[in-house]
Order: sequence, then C-alpha cells, then structure tokens
Amino acid sequence: MSAPATTDAVHLSLADVAALTRRVLLACGVDPRNEPAITASVVAAEADGVHSHGLARLPTYCEHAKVGKIYGKARPVLDSPRPGIVRVDAKCGFAHPAIEFGLPALLAAAKAQGIAALAVTNSYNCGVVGYHVERIAAEGMVALGFVNAPASIAPAGGTRPVFGTNPIAFAVPRPGRPPLVLDQSSSVVAKSEIVVHQQRGEAIPLGWALDKDGNPTTDPAAALAGGTMVPSGGYKGAGLALIVELLAAWLTDAHLSIEASSFADNLGGSPQTGQFFIAIHSEALAGPQAGERLERLFAAITDQPGARLPGSRRAEARGRTARDGIAIPRALHDKIAAYG
Amino acid sequence: MSAPATTDAVHLSLADVAALTRRVLLACGVDPRNEPAITASVVAAEADGVHSHGLARLPTYCEHAKVGKIYGKARPVLDSPRPGIVRVDAKCGFAHPAIEFGLPALLAAAKAQGIAALAVTNSYNCGVVGYHVERIAAEGMVALGFVNAPASIAPAGGTRPVFGTNPIAFAVPRPGRPPLVLDQSSSVVAKSEIVVHQQRGEAIPLGWALDKDGNPTTDPAAALAGGTMVPSGGYKGAGLALIVELLAAWLTDAHLSIEASSFADNLGGSPQTGQFFIAIHSEALAGPQAGERLERLFAAITDQPGARLPGSRRAEARGRTARDGIAIPRALHDKIAAYG
Repeated sequence: MSAPATTDAVHLSLADVAALTRRVLLACGVDPRNEPAITASVVAAEADGVHSHGLARLPTYCEHAKVGKIYGKARPVLDSPRPGIVRVDAKCGFAHPAIEFGLPALLAAAKAQGIAALAVTNSYNCGVVGYHVERIAAEGMVALGFVNAPASIAPAGGTRPVFGTNPIAFAVPRPGRPPLVLDQSSSVVAKSEIVVHQQRGEAIPLGWALDKDGNPTTDPAAALAGGTMVPSGGYKGAGLALIVELLAAWLTDAHLSIEASSFADNLGGSPQTGQFFIAIHSEALAGPQAGERLERLFAAITDQPGARLPGSRRAEARGRTARDGIAIPRALHDKIAAYG
Repeated sequence: MSAPATTDAVHLSLADVAALTRRVLLACGVDPRNEPAITASVVAAEADGVHSHGLARLPTYCEHAKVGKIYGKARPVLDSPRPGIVRVDAKCGFAHPAIEFGLPALLAAAKAQGIAALAVTNSYNCGVVGYHVERIAAEGMVALGFVNAPASIAPAGGTRPVFGTNPIAFAVPRPGRPPLVLDQSSSVVAKSEIVVHQQRGEAIPLGWALDKDGNPTTDPAAALAGGTMVPSGGYKGAGLALIVELLAAWLTDAHLSIEASSFADNLGGSPQTGQFFIAIHSEALAGPQAGERLERLFAAITDQPGARLPGSRRAEARGRTARDGIAIPRALHDKIAAYG
C-alpha cells in the first residue's frame, strides 16, 4: 500500500489505468465478458491507494491467464440451491467476474429474504475484499466477506501453515455518504507486504513472519520460503483464520488453503479458492433511528483525537487519485505493457 | 476460567449446580418459564470449566433480578420481518430465554432458506457465546454469533471506550462428534479475567488493559475504573469489535456499547444489549465430501505437535466434570445460597 517513488515513475490517470489493464487482459486471452470486472477492480485498488492489489498484481494475472493457471475464458455458472443461497462456480476463471455474476442474485435474495449468502467456488485471488463488500453496501445491504488463500498461517502452537492470510471484510451503508468498509487479514500484515519488502531488498520488522522452524525472522525470503505469517493477536488471529477458512473454503466446496496452489507462481494448476459473502437487509432490523444511531457510534470514534474510522485513508486517496491520477514505477509499467 | 482452590471449597455435582441455580433464580422472582434456559447455561459453563461465566455470575444475575435491573418475569416476543430473519425482543429480561425462544424459528428458517439470522434486542449478558452457537451447530447448522457489551475497548488511536469486549463465536457440526466451537472476545482477554485478578488481589500482566489515560497498567482497579481493555492484535481487534458492534447492537436496534449500563453493578437500568446469530444450512453448499474435507482440515492442525483444535480444553473438562462434579470457593457458594 506504499506510494511509489516519483523518480523514474510513469504517471497515469485512472482512465489510463483502465485502458492499460483492459488491453493486456484481452491480449492474454481473457474473455471480453470477463475483462470489465477485473479492470474495474484494478482501477478501484489504484484509486483507493491500495497499490499492492492494483497494477502490481496485473503481471501475475496476465501470466496466469497466458499459461492457463487461470482460465481467462471461463464463464461462471450460477445456481440457487435454497432461496437465501446463491452459488457461483467460477470454473477456474477469475474471481471478479464470478463475484459480479452473483451479486444481482445475492442482492435480490437479501432483499426478499432479509439475509442471503453468495458462495463462490473454484475461484482465484479476488483482490481487495473490501471492494466487493462495498459494492453490496452501496446497494443498501450490510455485507460480510470471507476469503481464503494458499496456506501461510500456522495454527496456534504449530509451525506448518494451514490457513491463508484469510481476510474478513465488512461494509455498512451510511446515509448520504459512501459505505463504511473494514477489510483486514487474519495475519499481522497482508502477505503482499512481505513481497513488497523482498522486492525492495528491505528487511521486515520482527513480528510479521516466522521462518520454516517457527522462529521470528526479519528476512522476507525466509518468511516466504516455507515460513509462516504471524496471526494478528496470536491464537485469536489463528482462530479468526479458521473461521474464515471454514466459510470461504470448506463451506463453498473450494480448495482448502492447504490444497490451493500459489497465487504467485505458475505451478500447481488453478488455486480453486473460495469466497463467501453475506448480505443483510438492515431496514428489516435496525429500526427507524438506524442512520442516526450509526452516526452516533461513528462520532464516538471520530470525536477522539488520534482515532479515525476504518477506510478513511482509502476515502482520502479516492479524492486525490481522481484528480491527480497515480504514479507507478517505470519497471512495473514496462512489465505490464509487455503483455499487451 | 481458573479452577478454584480445593481448600475451603464446596464440591457440587452438575445436578447440584442445577438445583442451586434453579432455587436462587426462582427465589429472586425469575419466571419459572425463563429459569430453565438460564440454569442450563450456568450448568454448561461449569461443565465446560468456564467458571468465570458459571456460578461466579449467579450472584449478579440474582441481584439484578431482585433490584429490577433485569426483569426476571419478562417474556420474550418474537416476530419474523422477512423469511430469513427472526427477531426476538427480550423485553429487558434475561438473554438466555430470549435466545432459546428464537432458536426453533431460526433453525426452521435456515433449513428452508439456506441461511437465516436471529436478532435479539433489549437483552442482557448472554454468558458464554459459544454455548449458543454450539446449540445451533448441534442441529446441523454452521453458526456465527456476535454479542455486544458495555463499552470497554477504545478505538485504534483513542483512549475512551466505545466497544464492549464484543466476542465473536463460531460453530460447525462434525460428523459423529460434538461441534467444533470457537469463542473469542475482541480484547486480549475477557473482562472477567480482570475482575478475577482484582478479586484475588493480583496484578494483571502488561498488555491486557490500559488506564484512563491510555497508559498500560498492571493494576486491575485502574483498568476497571475508567480504563480500557486492549484489543487483540491492536487496530485489528478494534476493527473486529466494530464489526461485532454493528451486527450485535446497531443492526438489532439494541443499546450501543456506549449506551449500555454495566453488567456488574445495580445502576443505570437494563443494559439492553443485543445478540446476533447467523445459521447456515451447510448441506446446501459444502458438497458430498463435506465431512471428509472438514476432518482433513482439522487433521492438518492436530497432526502438528503443540497445536490443538479450539475448544479442546472445554471438551476435556466436560468429561471430567460429568464424572467428578466441580468445586467452588465456599465464599461464592454461601453468597449464592443467601439469595435462595
């Protein structure tokens, strides 16, 4: 999520980001019906200043589409085994078109039933989970999101990875404003932070990761080669990762984190991870003073010096990038452009 | 959750625990239709070795029923504003009969809809949240539980409490075994741990709580008098507490944690906190190999030396207490018995 240096950088408007992303995805064989959902998510990540999940991911997306680790032409298939359950099989394609395919049915079910779930299986890295729950909340629903990933967190007391960094995300609609969005991994930091440090040749702080023997390490390579990510809050972070695993992977009949191939290399076939979203129609429950009560809670946070609402940095970035665009390292730009 | 000393202790079978609890609740004016749900939860907490949430709470329950901070005769009222939503108004009575009142409707809705929610409002301390989700999972459903409590955790960067220790609980049915149950507060430790240390005149470890100025403290009195509980994993624990707050309090139209009166003293009227449960019919989703996949995940944890599944200590206690009963300090026993 760190901003790139402006020396030897390429400046892009958000429209440039969209055009570049579209061009290379299509050149790598992504179906034109799948491309818009992926492009929109890359633009949104850059707009929000979440650079680790924006253009930085695009070379991997392109590479995976080219080598067939992900099927760019896969079209998601939807069914609804119960009135409150929408299931989408991503068919080993990109996560974004699969989730987008399921959203209208999820929203309709939540409106009718009061609560509904969207289970996405045989999927892939879905980028920023907050992006998806925000879209649900923008339609007036309270949203929860759970996502699994290749194993990188060990269970409490153990040394071998069992859970992905397994983020949880939450969004709630606010009257007259964008939804409040929370999005946090079960680990102290997202794995992408370790990768960014490795790419820069920098040590990682103690407390982020363990080596393969379970010892604390400052070496990003030791963390990534058979090591594990430290769960946030110790056993409670591992507990949260287990909850996310059971919802996002086990319940959706996707690959467990221990079974999923890496999001980073070309090996092991499709990761086939899962995503699980819950949408709740708050109007049915939160009472006539819902909006006022929500803002009263938020004011109890923002009234304190030094405290801020989750997502406020992203909201600030959104204003800035819409006006100024973004800057990315020339090396990254050239690496992406080579795919198109 | 610490076992009491056996010197100057009173030994009780679980049947004795039930009889004692029943007697004093009824003596304090609790409606005979409400008493069984409360008694069952006290027995279950003692059976599981969670002493902080068993008989240790009973004097407060009795006191609150006597002084009218909780209405022992309140009968919960149920409605279903949407096919997937069950709402129970506890009417400022005990939480346990209100939750129990809603469970059959929740289970029926989850079976029919695939997913359903139970929102309990105008409620009270519901004891061990895991107890409730385990009951949902025992009926074959995946269960999530969210509970708010009087404010004791400050938002990230702030010093004034906004969230309760706001636990999250999860349970999943296991073929041929009791459900797996996770139950964890958003703070490093449950507030009851601070109270237990204060009662014993012991210091608390650094990292559990902050004093009223936001400084780390080892003094349980400083933690409880205007101080705050440290969120687990720093800002991520505060983020989880916010998610729980929005579901358990805001969404259920209950008192926010900043509005709720204390669970510990006689002041401020009924706490009117909330509970929110989600039940998911996993059969509709988890596929034909669901049981085998679940046990494969759990084996990846239990195969590691030093790692264990959440809830394994409670499961062990259950076997032991069913056979040997429990021991409680004579002072606690006499304090309880004085209510009956």
